[in-house]
Order: sequence, then structure tokens, then C-alpha cells
Amino acid sequence: MEQPTEQPAEQPSAPTSKKGAKKAEAKAKKEALKAQRAAELAAAAANVNLEDDPAQDNYGNRRTTASAFSKDAEEVEIRSLDESHNGKKVIVRAWLQNSRVQSAKMGFVELRKGGNWNIQGVIMASEQEPIVSRRMVKWVTSVNPESFVAVEAMVKKPLEPVKSCRVSGLELHITKCFVLAPAPAMLGMTMGAASQPIVNFSDEGAQAGDADKGPETTPETTVPAASMLTHLDNIAMHKRAPVQQAIADIRVEVKRLFRSYLEARRFKEFEPPCLIGAASEGGSNVFRLAYFGEEAFLAQSPQFYKQFEIAGGRERVFSISPVFRAENSNTPRHMTEFTGLDLEMEITESYTEVLSVLEGVLLSIFRGLQEKYAVQVTALTEDGFTIDRCATEIETVRTVYHSEPLLLPEPGKEIRLTFAEAQKLLREEGPSEFANVRDDEDMSTPQEKALGEVVRNKYKTDFYVIDKFPETARPFYAKVDDAGTTVGDGVRVTNAFDFFIRGQEVLSGGQRIHDPTELEERIRAKGVDPESAGIKEYLTTFRQVGVPPHGGGGIGLDRVVAWFLALPSVHLAAYYPRTPKRLLP
Amino acid sequence: MEQPTEQPAEQPSAPTSKKGAKKAEAKAKKEALKAQRAAELAAAAANVNLEDDPAQDNYGNRRTTASAFSKDAEEVEIRSLDESHNGKKVIVRAWLQNSRVQSAKMGFVELRKGGNWNIQGVIMASEQEPIVSRRMVKWVTSVNPESFVAVEAMVKKPLEPVKSCRVSGLELHITKCFVLAPAPAMLGMTMGAASQPIVNFSDEGAQAGDADKGPETTPETTVPAASMLTHLDNIAMHKRAPVQQAIADIRVEVKRLFRSYLEARRFKEFEPPCLIGAASEGGSNVFRLAYFGEEAFLAQSPQFYKQFEIAGGRERVFSISPVFRAENSNTPRHMTEFTGLDLEMEITESYTEVLSVLEGVLLSIFRGLQEKYAVQVTALTEDGFTIDRCATEIETVRTVYHSEPLLLPEPGKEIRLTFAEAQKLLREEGPSEFANVRDDEDMSTPQEKALGEVVRNKYKTDFYVIDKFPETARPFYAKVDDAGTTVGDGVRVTNAFDFFIRGQEVLSGGQRIHDPTELEERIRAKGVDPESAGIKEYLTTFRQVGVPPHGGGGIGLDRVVAWFLALPSVHLAAYYPRTPKRLLP
Repeated sequence: MEQPTEQPAEQPSAPTSKKGAKKAEAKAKKEALKAQRAAELAAAAANVNLEDDPAQDNYGNRRTTASAFSKDAEEVEIRSLDESHNGKKVIVRAWLQNSRVQSAKMGFVELRKGGNWNIQGVIMASEQEPIVSRRMVKWVTSVNPESFVAVEAMVKKPLEPVKSCRVSGLELHITKCFVLAPAPAMLGMTMGAASQPIVNFSDEGAQAGDADKGPETTPETTVPAASMLTHLDNIAMHKRAPVQQAIADIRVEVKRLFRSYLEARRFKEFEPPCLIGAASEGGSNVFRLAYFGEEAFLAQSPQFYKQFEIAGGRERVFSISPVFRAENSNTPRHMTEFTGLDLEMEITESYTEVLSVLEGVLLSIFRGLQEKYAVQVTALTEDGFTIDRCATEIETVRTVYHSEPLLLPEPGKEIRLTFAEAQKLLREEGPSEFANVRDDEDMSTPQEKALGEVVRNKYKTDFYVIDKFPETARPFYAKVDDAGTTVGDGVRVTNAFDFFIRGQEVLSGGQRIHDPTELEERIRAKGVDPESAGIKEYLTTFRQVGVPPHGGGGIGLDRVVAWFLALPSVHLAAYYPRTPKRLLP
Repeated sequence: MEQPTEQPAEQPSAPTSKKGAKKAEAKAKKEALKAQRAAELAAAAANVNLEDDPAQDNYGNRRTTASAFSKDAEEVEIRSLDESHNGKKVIVRAWLQNSRVQSAKMGFVELRKGGNWNIQGVIMASEQEPIVSRRMVKWVTSVNPESFVAVEAMVKKPLEPVKSCRVSGLELHITKCFVLAPAPAMLGMTMGAASQPIVNFSDEGAQAGDADKGPETTPETTVPAASMLTHLDNIAMHKRAPVQQAIADIRVEVKRLFRSYLEARRFKEFEPPCLIGAASEGGSNVFRLAYFGEEAFLAQSPQFYKQFEIAGGRERVFSISPVFRAENSNTPRHMTEFTGLDLEMEITESYTEVLSVLEGVLLSIFRGLQEKYAVQVTALTEDGFTIDRCATEIETVRTVYHSEPLLLPEPGKEIRLTFAEAQKLLREEGPSEFANVRDDEDMSTPQEKALGEVVRNKYKTDFYVIDKFPETARPFYAKVDDAGTTVGDGVRVTNAFDFFIRGQEVLSGGQRIHDPTELEERIRAKGVDPESAGIKEYLTTFRQVGVPPHGGGGIGLDRVVAWFLALPSVHLAAYYPRTPKRLLP
């Protein structure tokens, strides 16, 4: 049998600069033509009469593959294929993502599965068993991209590695091919377009149900990159793109690392409610709904409930839960629903115990994601092997959205600045516009960004803590520093802090007030009525029993993923981003 | 030093039958008197002048324990105390839950921490160092129950085991005692009352903000058990009760077992959204809210999003997420917000692959909870030891809410009945009222309960599957059996199933339609407009790409916990139960 000498046309790769745009545009045109040609071929294939084809049982559309394959063929995942399969007969289920006709007797397809694992398939006419007819070659190479297929194939080594495929050292010589779920002849967004970096995140003009408003949302027919709206309108293709698979996998791993760090330290998971009876953390920015003749609200944070858990003797708790903000902010930094990673714990002597746990959990996440670790397999072989948690996925994301690795402090050399120290640094070493920032007023987003630059240059880290925020910048439950330290015009500081990466806040936390008298005083000082709905019940809880000193923090999962990867929008880190203008899909 | 010869008065234990109620009532009265006495003592203690007390530095109210304790005292958790601490000086932080004056020179307290770990504390006057004055003895035994304290103590062995405490082989001889967070003189609900089984789950008369409506909500002053409303009004005491600690721990473990079983099988976690743009799974029972000039809805299930994940190439996914039902059902089986454990997976050949995974994950949860496993510690000692996941917690729950262990099938002997077989069983072996149940009509709750009895008697299991539900009883996305099997008056059956424990449904699942033409046909057949909001986008997704065969299921976490433990209400299994009449706390 002939060995294939060429590889299928490569996927359009992501232009990482604007210089690549023209080239990409040309590619996109080529791709559009290709899609048209594929549609024509598919139409032709549908009219083929298979009845007199000696290979008729080896291909076609099927509802099931029951008894379709040889009994000695092994069902295998693409990601699991290795040298040991060479020369063996396998069954592979996958998406056919690309095909190319080499001649009437030969063609290539690319099969993808397992997120981002692909392998080259070869289809060659053969009159010997297993019979592959020319008509079958034509049919297989005409299958619409993104159809779900099941193939039987012989695993072989290609003459040279197939560079365009992750499984480059093997290829599949296809002898049977069934389409289980056909894709349409024309995709709403091709894999090529889905794999381009998104530049346009605007929701402008978006309407609920606006999924097919025509050429404007399918710009990949004329320009290479699609807008975020087009991505959302083609949610399956959006998700299938390797870059989104990688981001989703990283997100999974962030949650896993968060959870495992805390569980190892005796934290217990709980679920705070979403539906609450009072807009207790501020009346604005809260979603309201009719609730059996009364009004209900959607939780803006699990804050009160984490504290109820502490009051209830749960000692150390964490939650991973949706939180809601009815904020009409149409920016790449905002969503109306996001996932909060929250924790709360008893304090033995000092709130820095809380700070250390939070620093520990975030560093464990960031270090864990980038980690490669060697595994020594002593029992079976002398060799060890290296596995990574997300290093490959991070690399995949960077080929589309370029970023520098997150600079982390050396263990034991974490940077903790007080708010006053941070403002001083900004005044002295930051841009001149921030030469007069005050120690008793909260930072703005541009200030935070600028400080991130200063800290990176000075301390060589993208990760740092700002502690001892002034009481003016914190909610009523923040515990004021017992030592009575003040800043600016006599404003007291709190045992509260924010964590930053790349100059952007990802965590807010601190010690909470556990004494009901002190709590009521602070509630009044903040101009809140201690008898108001929600506040009253909150305060009552601290009066009903003795509640130990405690503190905690909240991390925005979407932001941690987005800023860690330096993505252009937090919407890329969410599975189904919710914005003021968009709730679909 | 004198050895204590008596133990403190025991906590009123839970009457497990109605016969115990009278005795419990008497106890409760005694308890109320005790609480009053404690209040008087506390008031007296507050007026004590400590200044001339030689032990004045060893007790009192403090904001912090910094430099309060001896440098050679080791901070330790009650649950960690063992023989190795005997004769050592320790610092323990805990809730003081009980105290008793033995004489002017001696008293006992009970300290609780770590959920359900308690130990006896002894306070004895001593003129030698460390000095304990009579005034200190009086003060310590007058501390209000449920205050949070920090004590320094010598660990000693009692003359005989302290039966009322979990750490029965050791006691703490207190030399310092500081109250860090005092409880009020009178608790809204005592630990004794909180530990009684709740009988009254009615929401009648409950109003938002009704936390202190007087005698009716504090029945423990006249009767021993408190209503669910009183429990919720005293959320910290509700949670502190050992029975609720145990239920909460079991709930944590159910989630952990669910997750670990699936992660080991390459399932990936994702977060479906709560806010959705269309009430796509039926317009009734859905919460609606104003959303920036449009309308939004709260998700009734993650169904569509799980399927989008499959369409998006995620292969095997699971989610643990809140779901919402705007159903005005005031029963112990209903809540308006609950936690769904959901999964969805590709199917290779048959939907029974899905059924097997779901059966596997539930059995792994039920077996895992009851498991005791031996750990052999070869490196450190010759001895092994036995640990359990939740066996102790299950036992704790049973002392309050009695139940029989869940009967599980032997591995490989799981019971799977078709819907028609189940109905036949009910007709032939069930109560006479069900002698005419039909094979093409859905089961009612009483039918399910009755079937549970029949199955338990016949197959000796509380856990079983009913498969092949008629299409009349399933939503439009349920895949109809390819073989064309029909029941009753020609109604087709589906590849859909429910799982039951103790005759109550805990899981619903099956194969979904992946072919857009078939899906549209079923949508129309169910009388739904395929062009309606939400449905249109759902259907479009299957038209946009080839989606492989897939199926999944959804488990109600709250119900799994409640029915596993045979609790009288699902509200006891939730951290913050949401009902039509109650959103607080």
C-alpha cells in the first residue's frame, strides 16, 4: 500500500499581531471557497447510489454502530493512542474537522477528540480486503467538517511526523467510516474562525434571540476573526475551539486546586442560598423578583451566610457559588452572574492567619497550574515520566492570546504592603497623575493598574497583597484595627485586604466584626439602619450566641482565570457569560 | 488535688418515641429554670470586683488572648486530644455548653468544638500556683452556655470515663479561662431543645422578618422540641446541634463522593448559568425577574447547558449547581431552591452506559457513606486503625431521627425494572387501590411509595431503577426507544429512567435526542413551538454541528441526603431551606 506523502492543509493559525490580519483575510477567503466546495461535494455524495458498491457496508450515515465494526477492533480514544497500537485495528469516534482529496484513490481527513487531540486519517482505495472503493474515498473526504464519525482503521506510522496533528507519530488508515451526526454543509463559524483571537467584545446591537441576524454576525466569511457575539451564537463551535477547551480545562483545575488546598486544611464546603429575603448588602445593584406575593433578591455575595456558618460552629468553611450583580456595566471586566470562591474561618490570635491561608490558596492555584511534575514509575519500569496539570493548556491559550507568565514571589518572599505604603509607592514612583493620592480614600481601577506596574518593576512579582484598607473603603462588617492606627485625616484602618494579580483585584477579604455591640456601632456609622430587613437578622445572630473571632475572603473565579491568562475579557473565562444585554445561550 | 467524682448533668437526650415526650417536657422545664438561674449568676458575676483577686489575671472577658497564656502551653483541638496529652498543659478554644457548681471550691463545665467533640472541664480552687480562687470557680461556672471561651488547662485522666463526653478518657483541669465572645444569659433555643427531633415543619403564620414573635416561636420553655421555624430563627443554635453538624458533614461527603467518582472517570465540572433568557423548560413554576428592560428567568435545571457542553466537545461533564422552582408547594418534600448534581456524557453504543455510570455513582455515594475502612500504618507502628467516612455521623443522626440502614443490592445484583414491569408488580403485589395502574401513565407519589415496599420485600433492596418510561411521562428531549416498543394503547417507551431509594425518586435521567429532525418532531408532538424563545436556540445548536449520541441524569442533593437518612423533611438536609413562605435567614 502506498504511503501518504503529504499532510492535509493546516488549520488557519492565529495571527498574534495585526500584521497577520491581511494574510488571515486571504486565508479566510480561501476557507470560504473551500466550505462551498465541501457543500457541493456533500450534495453530490448524497446522490451517490451505494447499492452496487462492493464497499457499501463500510461507510455511510448510520444511527448506531452496533455490529458495524470488526470484532477484533479495539475501541480507543485518540489521546490514548501510542506506539503500542502500531499495526493494530482500532475503532475511533471523533469529529472530522478537515479533509483533503489527494487523488481519486486517496484522501486525508483530520479527526479530533478529547478537547484538543487530533490525528491524521488516511483513506486509500483498495481492491483487497478490507475493500475501500473510490466512491468510498470520495464520500469520506466529502463529509462535512464537524460531523461526528466513527471509523475503523489500522494504526500505522507515517513516513514523517504529521506536524499539524497532536498525535503526530501515528496515523489512521481508515477502512470503515460512518457518520453518526452530520454537520451542516456550511458552518455558522468555522473552526478556523473560532480559533482566532476575539477582538470585538461589544454587545452593541445585540438583542435577545438575535442568533441569526445575517452577515454582520458571520464576519468570518470576509474577515478572519469573529466577534464575541458570533461566538455565542455558535456556542458549540466556540466551545470546540482548542483555545476555549484549554480555558475551560484551566478553569476546572482552578476550582480543583482551590478545593483541595482547603479540604486538606479542614475547611468544609457548604452552599449559600441564591434567593434571599432582603437586599442586605446594599440596595442598588441587586436583582429583585416576585416571590409568592412578597419580594425576593438574588445574593450579591455569600458573606452573611459564611458568617452564619461560623456562628453555627462550622469553624472553617468554603463555598463555590454563583453571585449576582444588577450592574449595567458593559465592559470586559463585568458580568451580571459570576462564580465566587469564598472562604471563612475562625481566628485564633490574628487576622493574618486568614491572610496567610488566602495567600496560600491563591499561590497554590497559580503554582499548581504551571506545575510540571515528574512521576517515577518504579514498579513497572525504570523510566519516570513528566505530566503537567495545565502547562499544555496554558501554552495553547498563549498561541491565541499572547501573555507573559505570571511572575510569582519566591516562597517566603510574598509582598504585603499596607494601603498607606501602596499609596506612598504610587505617589513616589507611579505616574505623575497619581502624585497626590490619599491614604484615606479608596483606589480607582487606573490607580490599581499603575500600582501593578510599579510593584512588578520594584519587587519582580505580579502577585501581591494590599492590607489595612481605611474604613472608608470597606463595608460595615470589616473589623477596625485594634491598635487604633489612623491614616489621612484621622481615618481608622481595618484588618481588611485585597489581593492583586497584574494590577487587577482578584480577592477581597479580612477580619469581620464578631462582637454585636461593635457591629451595631459600625452599621450605624455607615448610615445603615440596624433594624432594616436582613441587617436585623444578621445582627441578631451575633447577639444570640457567642461567635468566635473570624475572617475570610472572596475570590472571583472568572477573574482569576482571565487575569492569570491575561485574556482580553473576563467573558472568555466564563462558560456562559451573562451581560446586561445578553442571556443567550 | 481532689479528683472529681461526679460528672456534669447530662444534656437532655433525644426522645426517640412519643412516649419520651412527657419526660422530655419535665426535663425542659428543669432546663428553663436552670437557664434562669444561670442568667442570675451571670448578672452577679458581672458585678464581681476582680481587683483584689489573686487569680484576677487568669479569668474574665477579653478581646484577645495575646500573651494571656503560659508559653509552655500547647494550642490543641478537642478532637485531637489523646493519651499523649496526659499530664500536659494545653490551650483549648471551644464553646462552653454546660456547667455545674459542685461546691464553692469546685465546678464542672463541658467544652465543645469540632462539630461534635466535647470534653469535661474541671475547675477547682487552689492556693498554690497556678492560683484558682473561689471567685474564679464561681465566675467560670457562671459563664453563659454557648459563649466562646479559651482555657488553659492541665490534661488529666478522670477516675472513671466521662460518659457524657465524646473525649471520655481525659478531662481538662482549668487554670485559666477567658470569654472571647459571651452568649446572652437566655438562649433563644437551648442546645437541649436544638437536639430534639423536629416534629412541626409547618410554615403557617411565618412572615418575613418574624424572628422574634414571642412565646410561640420559643416553645422549648414549655415543651421540649422546637418547631422548624424556631430552629431557623435561631440559626446558630440549629447548626450547632450535633445532629445538624452530622447532617451537614454527610452532605459534604455526598458531594465529595459524587465528584470523585466522576473525576476518576474523566468527567469535567462546569457551571451552568442561573440567569437564563427564556423559560425554556415550561413556563409555569419558573421565577421571573426584570433584567435591564427585558425579562430574565431562573434556571429550573441545567439540562440545556449540559447538552451544550456535549455539543461543544466536552465529552463528559458534571455540575453541582442551584436550581429553582417557583412552585407553591408547602410540603416537607419541596423547596424553591435546591442543589442539583447533574451529569451528561457521550454514548458509545447504548444508553445503558449512562444508566451504569449513574447507578455506579449513587451506589458509590451510599456505600461510601457507610464505609469503615482499615488503615495499616506500617511505617510508624505495627497497629492499624479503622476510620470511617460518615458512620459516626450517621449514628448521631439516628439517635435523633431513627432510621433503618439503607438496604443496598449486592454488587452485580442491582435491580432494574422496566416501567411496565414495575406497574405489573404494583398491580399484582401492591395495595388493592393500585390494581389497575396503567403502563402508559406516569406514577403518582403514593404509587412510588407502595412500589418501594413491594420491591423491598421481594428483592431486599431500598435502591432500584425503573427504566423505559412511556413517552407520555417524559419531556420532549427524551429519546424514544429505537426498537419501537410500545405499552398500553400504543404509547412508545423512551430510553429514560428514574432511580429510587425507600420508594422515593432521587434521580431522573436517560438518553437525549441528538438528531435535530427527530428533536423538532418531538418538540412539536409535545405541543411546544420550535420557534419559541429558548427552544429555538436549543434546536439550532443541534443543527449547527454534529452532536454525538449522549445522555445523563440529575440528582437532587437535598433529597439524597434526606431520604438516605430517612429524615422527616428535606428541609433538614439543606443549609438554608427556601420555601414559599420563608427566605430567612
